[in-house]
Amino acid sequence: MPNLQQLIENIYAELLPQLGAGKVADYIPELAKVNPRKFGIAVETIDGGSYFVGDAEESFSIQSISKVFGLTLALGKHGDALWRRVGREPSGSSFNSIVQLEHENGIPRNPFINAGAIVVCDAILAGHRPKEAIGEILRFVRQIADDDTIVIDPAVAQSEQKTGYRNFALANYMRSFGNLGHPPDLALGVYFHQCAISMTCRQLARAGFFLGNGGRMQNGFAVIPRERARRICALMLTCGHYDASGDFAFRVGLPGKSGVGGGILAVAPGEASVAVWSPGLNRYGNSELGTHALQLLAERTGWSVFG
Amino acid sequence: MPNLQQLIENIYAELLPQLGAGKVADYIPELAKVNPRKFGIAVETIDGGSYFVGDAEESFSIQSISKVFGLTLALGKHGDALWRRVGREPSGSSFNSIVQLEHENGIPRNPFINAGAIVVCDAILAGHRPKEAIGEILRFVRQIADDDTIVIDPAVAQSEQKTGYRNFALANYMRSFGNLGHPPDLALGVYFHQCAISMTCRQLARAGFFLGNGGRMQNGFAVIPRERARRICALMLTCGHYDASGDFAFRVGLPGKSGVGGGILAVAPGEASVAVWSPGLNRYGNSELGTHALQLLAERTGWSVFG
Amino acid sequence: MPNLQQLIENIYAELLPQLGAGKVADYIPELAKVNPRKFGIAVETIDGGSYFVGDAEESFSIQSISKVFGLTLALGKHGDALWRRVGREPSGSSFNSIVQLEHENGIPRNPFINAGAIVVCDAILAGHRPKEAIGEILRFVRQIADDDTIVIDPAVAQSEQKTGYRNFALANYMRSFGNLGHPPDLALGVYFHQCAISMTCRQLARAGFFLGNGGRMQNGFAVIPRERARRICALMLTCGHYDASGDFAFRVGLPGKSGVGGGILAVAPGEASVAVWSPGLNRYGNSELGTHALQLLAERTGWSVFG
Amino acid sequence: MPNLQQLIENIYAELLPQLGAGKVADYIPELAKVNPRKFGIAVETIDGGSYFVGDAEESFSIQSISKVFGLTLALGKHGDALWRRVGREPSGSSFNSIVQLEHENGIPRNPFINAGAIVVCDAILAGHRPKEAIGEILRFVRQIADDDTIVIDPAVAQSEQKTGYRNFALANYMRSFGNLGHPPDLALGVYFHQCAISMTCRQLARAGFFLGNGGRMQNGFAVIPRERARRICALMLTCGHYDASGDFAFRVGLPGKSGVGGGILAVAPGEASVAVWSPGLNRYGNSELGTHALQLLAERTGWSVFG
Repeated sequence: MPNLQQLIENIYAELLPQLGAGKVADYIPELAKVNPRKFGIAVETIDGGSYFVGDAEESFSIQSISKVFGLTLALGKHGDALWRRVGREPSGSSFNSIVQLEHENGIPRNPFINAGAIVVCDAILAGHRPKEAIGEILRFVRQIADDDTIVIDPAVAQSEQKTGYRNFALANYMRSFGNLGHPPDLALGVYFHQCAISMTCRQLARAGFFLGNGGRMQNGFAVIPRERARRICALMLTCGHYDASGDFAFRVGLPGKSGVGGGILAVAPGEASVAVWSPGLNRYGNSELGTHALQLLAERTGWSVFG
Repeated sequence: MPNLQQLIENIYAELLPQLGAGKVADYIPELAKVNPRKFGIAVETIDGGSYFVGDAEESFSIQSISKVFGLTLALGKHGDALWRRVGREPSGSSFNSIVQLEHENGIPRNPFINAGAIVVCDAILAGHRPKEAIGEILRFVRQIADDDTIVIDPAVAQSEQKTGYRNFALANYMRSFGNLGHPPDLALGVYFHQCAISMTCRQLARAGFFLGNGGRMQNGFAVIPRERARRICALMLTCGHYDASGDFAFRVGLPGKSGVGGGILAVAPGEASVAVWSPGLNRYGNSELGTHALQLLAERTGWSVFG
Repeated sequence: MPNLQQLIENIYAELLPQLGAGKVADYIPELAKVNPRKFGIAVETIDGGSYFVGDAEESFSIQSISKVFGLTLALGKHGDALWRRVGREPSGSSFNSIVQLEHENGIPRNPFINAGAIVVCDAILAGHRPKEAIGEILRFVRQIADDDTIVIDPAVAQSEQKTGYRNFALANYMRSFGNLGHPPDLALGVYFHQCAISMTCRQLARAGFFLGNGGRMQNGFAVIPRERARRICALMLTCGHYDASGDFAFRVGLPGKSGVGGGILAVAPGEASVAVWSPGLNRYGNSELGTHALQLLAERTGWSVFG
Repeated sequence: MPNLQQLIENIYAELLPQLGAGKVADYIPELAKVNPRKFGIAVETIDGGSYFVGDAEESFSIQSISKVFGLTLALGKHGDALWRRVGREPSGSSFNSIVQLEHENGIPRNPFINAGAIVVCDAILAGHRPKEAIGEILRFVRQIADDDTIVIDPAVAQSEQKTGYRNFALANYMRSFGNLGHPPDLALGVYFHQCAISMTCRQLARAGFFLGNGGRMQNGFAVIPRERARRICALMLTCGHYDASGDFAFRVGLPGKSGVGGGILAVAPGEASVAVWSPGLNRYGNSELGTHALQLLAERTGWSVFG
């Protein structure tokens, strides 16, 4: 793809007039402070290219995108046993719905809705102290991004800890069904800190590289087996955008995971890893401009997994 | 793929000991009569190869697989206006759930659950008589399969017409919300006949070829634009197996559509179109052996869309 | 209660300024034609008094109030066996909800939501032709009202037959669970005609007399045993106003059954039978003014069953 | 009722062979320790009679029965403003369902399901410390029972505090909708202690006396206005037995409130206040033998509110 840099610059320019579209997340007070006019794109191609445009080197709160990394880590620890505690199906509900849990005995539908990600954090915790589990997650993200400067924003973690009543509800609810091995406070401590990881688009694109490259990093290190990379991509495609996952697959055609911070990580298997960031969200809680950018990118590169 | 014939023969042989696994659908009396030990596989590769094994030349009731063809036809008639009447999201519910309709004003979640397919049939009807619409669907399927011997099994259509109370409920329910343009009886007449199309694995694999080939048939004829083929594949991946769509994507990694007759049509974009048939169903209503065969095939060919 | 006539005249006068409040039902086209400014009250006391005011001698469509009479008749035919097919619990949902049926295998929560009343009509049908069952219901209502002039309005029955898609959905849905013994069309034929019975407030108050009098009519004839009268009253109190039953019990404190025609039948056990009519409905589908009139009446007479 | 003592002794003797029926609640560990063969009945008639039989002078955990007293107290503090935060409708769901809260913006259906009672406790708290609110509730119960020996069992309160994850989920969930004025821990502290009040059948029957006596205690003191007593009785009848409220009204015909400790308080307006206790529960969580005893009592006394 010789003109990829030109291509993302064109997309950036085309979307610039819409800067500020969507609504910045305000349910986590700390997130509401972000500048709504930020917009960045970064691409790492499997063949070694590295491209970016706009605010691609500015850190933002990756929020739910971190669920992909947490899942990867937990699968490494527990293997398929993890699937006894969390499903692999689209939920058909919003990211923080509790209805499905009542109907299905406290087993969350998939690891990318909040309830599922809390279970995954509980699995990472595995008897250790929250501080240790948080450290483990951060080290893992630094490793796959090959960048030791990545940090967790404590103000964001505390902001969510103070106001995340709905997540406390989900955790306590699952605990009542025996699907949480630790006290809700501890599992949530891990969860809130995982969500509070700050990364730039460039770091994020590098961190997602292994998912598009059969499990291997740019330096050849095998993070996970090819089979597992494939399966995590499948989950991202069917469940990565909550109750707009079908629409994202329809419009973009790439495995992706969004966060309420306005970031999206998308993977074009065998082609590239892409990260976009624009804080304004659509009504499903996914970045408005980011989704649009990915749609244009997939159309123009032909990277859609659907041909 | 030089050894594809050998490959499907191996898969066939490996699964033979499990013949008869699963449970034949019995809610349509006529379907319950089928021999549970049938098993066939057919593959049409984009580069022109044609492979099959087992009962691949025996006709069976394609049932819900027909929804893919109905959708293609309806999109040709109405374009994106169709999406005002039916969604594009996984339902998170079983194929005949009515709950979601009550919560979302009679708009079905996607065109592959029963309610959605009934709306699609209503859209194909478009003021004509059911007989004409049924004829149009049959002609379309014969065209894309390039085979004029394909027929509708009237006994199956009548069997479902007599016992399909739940589909009558769905149709009347959507009509009460104004999301059905014709009397429920007429839309259902089309729907039951569409589901009653009989095809062999070989015919089905040929009929699905255009979806894996950017919208074009083997003879080069463009059935639909590439963009639309891609999007139909996206819907198959996220919604093609009801509330086991996530699991199918996870295990197989291909867009697919199952039917309660035991058939599955799977598409490997740029690679092949595959049809399998084995009447025994798993608890989600999808072919037990058929799913297994596709999983092995995807693993061994590397056709998964997820790398 | 020497001044009961005065009392209802006062209530009538007090509420007169609000004539026309609420919204006339329009989902059955024929009902939408009614004059919204009608208002009548009729009381039959157990000690033999007969009082009325306003439009109490004008016929209106009793609609769902007829479910009380249908239930009484069906219990006479089938006894407690009827409770295997329909529950006795408030539904917590609107009158035409289908969600509960999916979660509870086609058994309606109670005989006063539409689904439950359709099952009751199916039980009355009991192998006969709809015409006969309809005739039986009409004869029963004439008997308990001691008035052979009561008729069914065929225009209303046909109007609902033509537009009652949601009821067709409910009936087909229950049939799919095996909880309907006859084809949906037949059970619904009975149901629509039962709902289309036309009565005046005076006739209705007389027809409900036996419920407040231990099962006996004014002439001493025992329609049902005391125990059963008590139990039908219990059902009216907990389920008679759909998802506003709790509010009606809270405000009025009497067993009652409303209809979308704007009528309400209320029973004060040991005291009186009361019928009110005013076509404007509140947002739960119950007569706005009628509810208000009953609240004032219960307050001033002390007839609340709660002391 | 001259032979009321004889009557309850007969009922007691008749049911004795069924002692131990039902299943003792075990989700609160401390409650699981109770002797399943306890059985007591106490009646206080409005005309001054006092009757009891069996284990009527032994204390047990009144659990959800306390919600009636909490509601009475909260209505005294906040009046009808309380109804903006909690509904008055039967829920159609089990006592600890969270589904309804998601669909109705965190407003519980009624004050007798757990979520509703937690809101009521939050209203009693009203800015004070939990210890003060708990003290206020205990003083109120002692006052209406005219018995200063009534205590809260701290082991039961702590047992629920340690294991009540589902209640923590409900409280956090409502807090996320802004329908809890205090941190969930504080409101739940009040709630768990309120539920842990220990009373005998005799104390309970005396404490409920005012509800059957137009709001006045045996000594003539007006606890609440007659209107309010009536309305609390209405709520008990429609919502007092969770999703078996309809059945209790159908079989017993009296306003009542059950607790998982096996107690039931029933009120016959103008006649009596009745308390029964037998720890074995039916599948709805209400005392099996207690319900039966009340059914026989209502039949033989004619106290049903339905005539």
